[in-house]
Amino acid sequence: MLLVRGGTVVTAEWSRRADVLCDDAGRIAAVGPALDVPVGCDVLDAGGLLVMPGGIDPHTHMEMPFMGSVSSDDFQTGTAAGVAGGTTTIIDFVIPDPGTSLLGAWKDWRAKAEKAVSDYSFHVAVTHWDQRVHDEMGILTRDCGVNSFKHFMAYKGALMVDDGVLLRSIGRALELGALCNVHAENGDAVAYLQQDLLARGVTGPAAHPRSRPPAVEGEAAQRVIAIAGLLGAPVYIVHVSTEEAAAAIAAARARGQRVYGEVLAQHLVIDDGVYADPDWLGAARHVMSPPFRPKHHQNALWAGLASGQLQTTATDHCCFCAGQKQQGRDDFTQIPNGTPGIEDRMSVLWHHGVRTGRLTPEEFVAVTSANAAKIFNIHPRKGTVTPGADADLVLWDADSSRTVSAATHHQNVDYNVYEGMTLTGLARHTISGGRVVWSDGDLRTVRGAGRYVERPCFAPD
Amino acid sequence: MLLVRGGTVVTAEWSRRADVLCDDAGRIAAVGPALDVPVGCDVLDAGGLLVMPGGIDPHTHMEMPFMGSVSSDDFQTGTAAGVAGGTTTIIDFVIPDPGTSLLGAWKDWRAKAEKAVSDYSFHVAVTHWDQRVHDEMGILTRDCGVNSFKHFMAYKGALMVDDGVLLRSIGRALELGALCNVHAENGDAVAYLQQDLLARGVTGPAAHPRSRPPAVEGEAAQRVIAIAGLLGAPVYIVHVSTEEAAAAIAAARARGQRVYGEVLAQHLVIDDGVYADPDWLGAARHVMSPPFRPKHHQNALWAGLASGQLQTTATDHCCFCAGQKQQGRDDFTQIPNGTPGIEDRMSVLWHHGVRTGRLTPEEFVAVTSANAAKIFNIHPRKGTVTPGADADLVLWDADSSRTVSAATHHQNVDYNVYEGMTLTGLARHTISGGRVVWSDGDLRTVRGAGRYVERPCFAPD
Amino acid sequence: MLLVRGGTVVTAEWSRRADVLCDDAGRIAAVGPALDVPVGCDVLDAGGLLVMPGGIDPHTHMEMPFMGSVSSDDFQTGTAAGVAGGTTTIIDFVIPDPGTSLLGAWKDWRAKAEKAVSDYSFHVAVTHWDQRVHDEMGILTRDCGVNSFKHFMAYKGALMVDDGVLLRSIGRALELGALCNVHAENGDAVAYLQQDLLARGVTGPAAHPRSRPPAVEGEAAQRVIAIAGLLGAPVYIVHVSTEEAAAAIAAARARGQRVYGEVLAQHLVIDDGVYADPDWLGAARHVMSPPFRPKHHQNALWAGLASGQLQTTATDHCCFCAGQKQQGRDDFTQIPNGTPGIEDRMSVLWHHGVRTGRLTPEEFVAVTSANAAKIFNIHPRKGTVTPGADADLVLWDADSSRTVSAATHHQNVDYNVYEGMTLTGLARHTISGGRVVWSDGDLRTVRGAGRYVERPCFAPD
Amino acid sequence: MLLVRGGTVVTAEWSRRADVLCDDAGRIAAVGPALDVPVGCDVLDAGGLLVMPGGIDPHTHMEMPFMGSVSSDDFQTGTAAGVAGGTTTIIDFVIPDPGTSLLGAWKDWRAKAEKAVSDYSFHVAVTHWDQRVHDEMGILTRDCGVNSFKHFMAYKGALMVDDGVLLRSIGRALELGALCNVHAENGDAVAYLQQDLLARGVTGPAAHPRSRPPAVEGEAAQRVIAIAGLLGAPVYIVHVSTEEAAAAIAAARARGQRVYGEVLAQHLVIDDGVYADPDWLGAARHVMSPPFRPKHHQNALWAGLASGQLQTTATDHCCFCAGQKQQGRDDFTQIPNGTPGIEDRMSVLWHHGVRTGRLTPEEFVAVTSANAAKIFNIHPRKGTVTPGADADLVLWDADSSRTVSAATHHQNVDYNVYEGMTLTGLARHTISGGRVVWSDGDLRTVRGAGRYVERPCFAPD
Ligand SMILES: [Zn+2]
Ligand SMILES: [Zn+2]
Ligand SMILES: [Zn+2]
Ligand SMILES: [Zn+2]
Ligand SMILES: [Zn+2]
Ligand SMILES: [Zn+2]
Ligand SMILES: [Zn+2]
Ligand SMILES: [Zn+2]
Repeated sequence: MLLVRGGTVVTAEWSRRADVLCDDAGRIAAVGPALDVPVGCDVLDAGGLLVMPGGIDPHTHMEMPFMGSVSSDDFQTGTAAGVAGGTTTIIDFVIPDPGTSLLGAWKDWRAKAEKAVSDYSFHVAVTHWDQRVHDEMGILTRDCGVNSFKHFMAYKGALMVDDGVLLRSIGRALELGALCNVHAENGDAVAYLQQDLLARGVTGPAAHPRSRPPAVEGEAAQRVIAIAGLLGAPVYIVHVSTEEAAAAIAAARARGQRVYGEVLAQHLVIDDGVYADPDWLGAARHVMSPPFRPKHHQNALWAGLASGQLQTTATDHCCFCAGQKQQGRDDFTQIPNGTPGIEDRMSVLWHHGVRTGRLTPEEFVAVTSANAAKIFNIHPRKGTVTPGADADLVLWDADSSRTVSAATHHQNVDYNVYEGMTLTGLARHTISGGRVVWSDGDLRTVRGAGRYVERPCFAPD
Repeated sequence: MLLVRGGTVVTAEWSRRADVLCDDAGRIAAVGPALDVPVGCDVLDAGGLLVMPGGIDPHTHMEMPFMGSVSSDDFQTGTAAGVAGGTTTIIDFVIPDPGTSLLGAWKDWRAKAEKAVSDYSFHVAVTHWDQRVHDEMGILTRDCGVNSFKHFMAYKGALMVDDGVLLRSIGRALELGALCNVHAENGDAVAYLQQDLLARGVTGPAAHPRSRPPAVEGEAAQRVIAIAGLLGAPVYIVHVSTEEAAAAIAAARARGQRVYGEVLAQHLVIDDGVYADPDWLGAARHVMSPPFRPKHHQNALWAGLASGQLQTTATDHCCFCAGQKQQGRDDFTQIPNGTPGIEDRMSVLWHHGVRTGRLTPEEFVAVTSANAAKIFNIHPRKGTVTPGADADLVLWDADSSRTVSAATHHQNVDYNVYEGMTLTGLARHTISGGRVVWSDGDLRTVRGAGRYVERPCFAPD
Repeated sequence: MLLVRGGTVVTAEWSRRADVLCDDAGRIAAVGPALDVPVGCDVLDAGGLLVMPGGIDPHTHMEMPFMGSVSSDDFQTGTAAGVAGGTTTIIDFVIPDPGTSLLGAWKDWRAKAEKAVSDYSFHVAVTHWDQRVHDEMGILTRDCGVNSFKHFMAYKGALMVDDGVLLRSIGRALELGALCNVHAENGDAVAYLQQDLLARGVTGPAAHPRSRPPAVEGEAAQRVIAIAGLLGAPVYIVHVSTEEAAAAIAAARARGQRVYGEVLAQHLVIDDGVYADPDWLGAARHVMSPPFRPKHHQNALWAGLASGQLQTTATDHCCFCAGQKQQGRDDFTQIPNGTPGIEDRMSVLWHHGVRTGRLTPEEFVAVTSANAAKIFNIHPRKGTVTPGADADLVLWDADSSRTVSAATHHQNVDYNVYEGMTLTGLARHTISGGRVVWSDGDLRTVRGAGRYVERPCFAPD
Repeated sequence: MLLVRGGTVVTAEWSRRADVLCDDAGRIAAVGPALDVPVGCDVLDAGGLLVMPGGIDPHTHMEMPFMGSVSSDDFQTGTAAGVAGGTTTIIDFVIPDPGTSLLGAWKDWRAKAEKAVSDYSFHVAVTHWDQRVHDEMGILTRDCGVNSFKHFMAYKGALMVDDGVLLRSIGRALELGALCNVHAENGDAVAYLQQDLLARGVTGPAAHPRSRPPAVEGEAAQRVIAIAGLLGAPVYIVHVSTEEAAAAIAAARARGQRVYGEVLAQHLVIDDGVYADPDWLGAARHVMSPPFRPKHHQNALWAGLASGQLQTTATDHCCFCAGQKQQGRDDFTQIPNGTPGIEDRMSVLWHHGVRTGRLTPEEFVAVTSANAAKIFNIHPRKGTVTPGADADLVLWDADSSRTVSAATHHQNVDYNVYEGMTLTGLARHTISGGRVVWSDGDLRTVRGAGRYVERPCFAPD
């Protein structure tokens, strides 16, 4: 047993002074002022700290095979980096090759994830459509604790699905009470623009954002919202990076449609200036999709989070080292897409969000854990501080600062997009399943201690 | 002590089976499954019921002098009708005559409210501007538990203030950490249209909505949002009744502005067809401002509540009996404005909101109590079910129905705008300050048992 | 030679009393007050009449093979019906079967059109993509007088093209200085909804609008605007029928994009009530795509025309008689899509547009001829009244009325969607190429008198 | 008589090679290819030039008493500068002091304008409301050739009118068939912000834009559009400078409302960087209202002109020399508001509009003359090239360049906001009333040669 004593508990609803008692089953046993210390109970001093739900990163890609490489953070190193930053749960993506079994892929990912040091769950991608996909969606939701399916409107010739597949999959998910996620970029347009740029000899990483301008995302967001609207189905749009997509979501919600939007911490603070880096690798390391955007888009993302029109923050954590990025040296379309981010998300949100007055501490909890827990139906097990919930906590030091560097981070990758950024607000201690796994800079994780989190479906429509 | 046993607790965040123990100080002592029954503790069986925070109606006018009359529900009868419907807290309006002391008016209202049977609080209206108003805003916030000020952009020649007063008052409130409320209708336009209609001999109640078309509200909402935006101040718009105003609020929020919108239960389900009633009194009884609207506006209001762009529901409860309405027999501008509503708000929201799938039970709690508590800074004392909070609860029977009628309601007024409407979802028991005040149709209120709720300011800007 | 004497000339720019002299080459020789009568010149009295440019219908389908039928008005009967209503130029569509030669199809359509009684031109549809299409687009623009290409985003499995083809074709057109037209409906969604309805046994014509709801059009309009925007190309959206599509066009124009929108006269005044007709044939006769819409969409279309955000009016004239419509008796997806309209377009626009105050007479000319002439680059040859222009005129009787009926119309089809509608404003005389072809109810057309109108490209980008 | 030979005539509708014959009454006698040269007729060679309608500047302030000064260009020097730039008609403003006679002021301005060298007309401002204003609006429209009235929503304590006056005046104008113009800025907000800045010791010209941020204009535009919409009246918003106001206009037009917007050439190309000038006078010379804006607003203005949502370009030409500007040395609110601009408007529009591809030559004519002529009801007398029209022409050299400088301009003021800007496209010759008044850099104006242009009302509603 562990008593977190003397802190200020912050949930998405309120803040107040309270102790938190964690039982030996890894759950919260009590929350209240001045709790008694049970016999044999460890005590962790939270004086001056905020006691918040551990972060949930609903969008990561650990050891994912992609574009001929495998992302360099595996489930152990990636989740360890997460707890160092205050994140205690990830929802990663099972991505079957088109034509293959969803269930088979899910089993593969389950096996890879056994070594995780904190809890994890899975979205499963639908990358083609046939009767088996239809049936396996049923099995996954009924037997495997999967309540969300992912779709790519981009990556033509690889993961991309057309509107017909979207309609079938969203329709099927609605029937099952599951939620569909979408990567919204128009893959036909991306492919056309990529070919056009290459044909004109434009091959460097600066071409990457030119091949995926904001309208490419805005269009796809509009489209999938319209498609979901036709079916009366909810839809969750991952990594919203443009004011166009944010506006499309807000407009749909104003019509009464249930649409959710996720923002990556990276997009909130980094703009497309990075692609002007004369150093090839410097620019290539920022190649991700959607790309970094002109600065004015950031205000729409922050406003979306503050107003509740965008609900979650994530990282799309997907690491590739210098040698991997090099495979696109002569052709930007071959640069593995992705950036690291899981370790710094919460500090970025606190520093640039709470300290600037854009978000209250309660809203910080909402967008870093509570809303993801609600949307993906693991609330109140995750995302709040209440008796019965999992004892996943971060003890937040709102006033201390650290400077980000690849030299000191715990992510298994050789750079950090926030390199040199000084952030105020950091995870002083992190608790996962009732155990302290990060304390004052000391990682105390256990390989395989993380559990698979089953997520039940919503009542079907 | 009172143990509410066997129900399903529903807050704005989650629902789960739990007992709730209320202590003798009128607070919640514990929330959890299978709580022990303390010695001497009463037990109330909540089996099959939802245990939710008592409703907060943030907009009522009890015994208000207005247009030469006084609204017929006083603080006792009005709050009693509230508890019969599940509402346990009201925020009423202190409305000083232009030129008079805010503090004096606040004292008057405090005195009138002594007889309330459940808790109450006050917004204070600013109806003119001078140094004393400036100073008394300071006193009210510091010493009197007032954190919100009300402004009328309509009622020209009476309560209306111009943009200069709005700027000064909103600026002053920002300095104090208080929130400004606004009745948003363009009073110049209303006066012009009223005169024009009267000049053309159009004197009946059907002229009322013609003198206050949707654009009159949309314009004023836009304007006050722009004014608050200039100052960087939050603003709360009462009784949003049009898609124009709802869109203005959503657009401001998408730019990152803190704007809140309140919806009246009446506007959600009643449309402007009521003014076509050939019976003068039938139509006159629906004269309120803003008026009832063409039906298509209702979707924007529901969608606003579901998407979180509109946050609260209220009633603008303001009762006038037939004799009072008659004073406008020859001139619709003399009909006292107002409709009753406090008793039925929660059932209307449940029946038309939750049962139709527009709102989840958690969202129902958000819009009937939790959001108002947060916005007006009495959360978590009010608006949730948690240890330490006031023991204001409604035990909700989600499946039973009742048919609304003035013959049976508890409001002190001779009609009901929902007359004959059968609503599923009703308050089976209501608890205020730990005491059962309504039980199975039996009112058990005590005159004067309600307490004045002080609301502290937010940290000033 | 022909002198039109004593009328009021109305162009898109101005109205004034003037005579118009037409020379023997079929051109306007002079416009001015009190012109002298040359020797041997015929005189047509235009006293009390408006002398306007003959109408241009930029969207017709004469004798088109479609859905297993051929539309019943051929180029002779269809253009004759046009002149009876004041329309003297049509732009029809060459629609090659997917995979076949554009040039070959263009030659086929040229041959069919030889019998036209008034002038005609052609858009050519791109229904697939390969090198030959690319090359033939060059030939058509250079040698054949074609400056516009049509694309279908609907009719999956038949005419529909995907976004990749749209990008290639719009890019190619931009290079050539040609303009792309688009039928904007999401064909994947239509196919999905059709199958879903049929699978549920919903087979009648009332299912038609349910398979193509407004969002299906709004989405596609958004998408093609985004695609054209990526390329910096203009785009023309045919038959805009919804406020969603109209709003998408207006928004794009407000960003500086060159987007044009066309409205069908039918959509301006007929709503989706027609599908509730218990008579199968009555409903089936209104099956066209996009379908008739709920009434509130009409205001957006009228406002678009009045504000200049939508520029042209057309008819999508495509006639199928009862026997042809019957082929979809058991399956609404097999009903040939299309309605007649060419004969009544101008009267509908005058009666419902000018007489209601929505449009001025000058705006009437703009939306019935001048704007189409400008957009498709045949201005000032067509679409205005000026020396040198083709002598295509309608002498409009603004005050006389007629009642529409299939019994009396000149269209070769057995019904009229305006049956029984009394319209004020009619073509008293129509002049095509300097010859009177319609006079006081008397058709004086000559088979084959119509000329093919070559349209040069714009300067390429 | 004067024959303009060999040029390309460009109107808002089309361009073509044509000669233009001007008669001795100052009107256009003929337009056509290869016109005969009448005996005794002067010939002006227009080879290589565009022959366009002389510019109309619908917003100037010559010798206006304002803020304790009088603007330095009088009707002679100001109109002379106009013809040097290709502008041959101005519509200036009669601005009565509040409380005084409109008719009296109109007579004063008529007298001042007698010395104008080219044609002029007047809007009359309504700066208060009483029965005499009501009556004199009737007289002015019936007897004085005035069809437009101006209103200031800003300049509190001076020219500003409240919403009640706006309603009365717009309502009265509607009754008369006149059009209302509005300077849209919220004067209460400006006054509040000015006082706040001054109170904080911020007194320099950089405070000017801070006292009138974009929302101040956007709000007022929204408001007056709503007010006009209540009455069903058209409205014309002068000097639209923000995307907020442009969006409000576009939205109103999309609802079917007749709203017009004017853009100043200055706002199209100069941004708010000018207020950062460390030289006090340099910044003070740019003090005008609305102020220069952040650069991104310019795109909305250009797009508005290109799409037809904004219709006219003007200058608000209002000159104050250094000594006059100095009166606000210690208090930015005392700097006379205004900038010069009449001489360079057309070159600015051509260089930055036509040469960049934003506008076609025909659209250039539309926004520099034709649209103003139509909106203010002097078309086709002004704003086109057609027999019977006034012979006001500019012979435009589209390829030559000049560099703007106060040292060489003809405006009677000691600076130029475009100082040093090289513009391609200039007035080679200007013809006013059939006489050459500007030729190859040579001003040939005659004091008093300008005529007062009466503008008839539209048919009243
Ligand atoms: Zn992605
Ligand atoms: Zn991803
Ligand atoms: Zn009110
Ligand atoms: Zn009220
Ligand atoms: Zn079509
Ligand atoms: Zn068609
Ligand atoms: Zn002005
Ligand atoms: Zn001005």
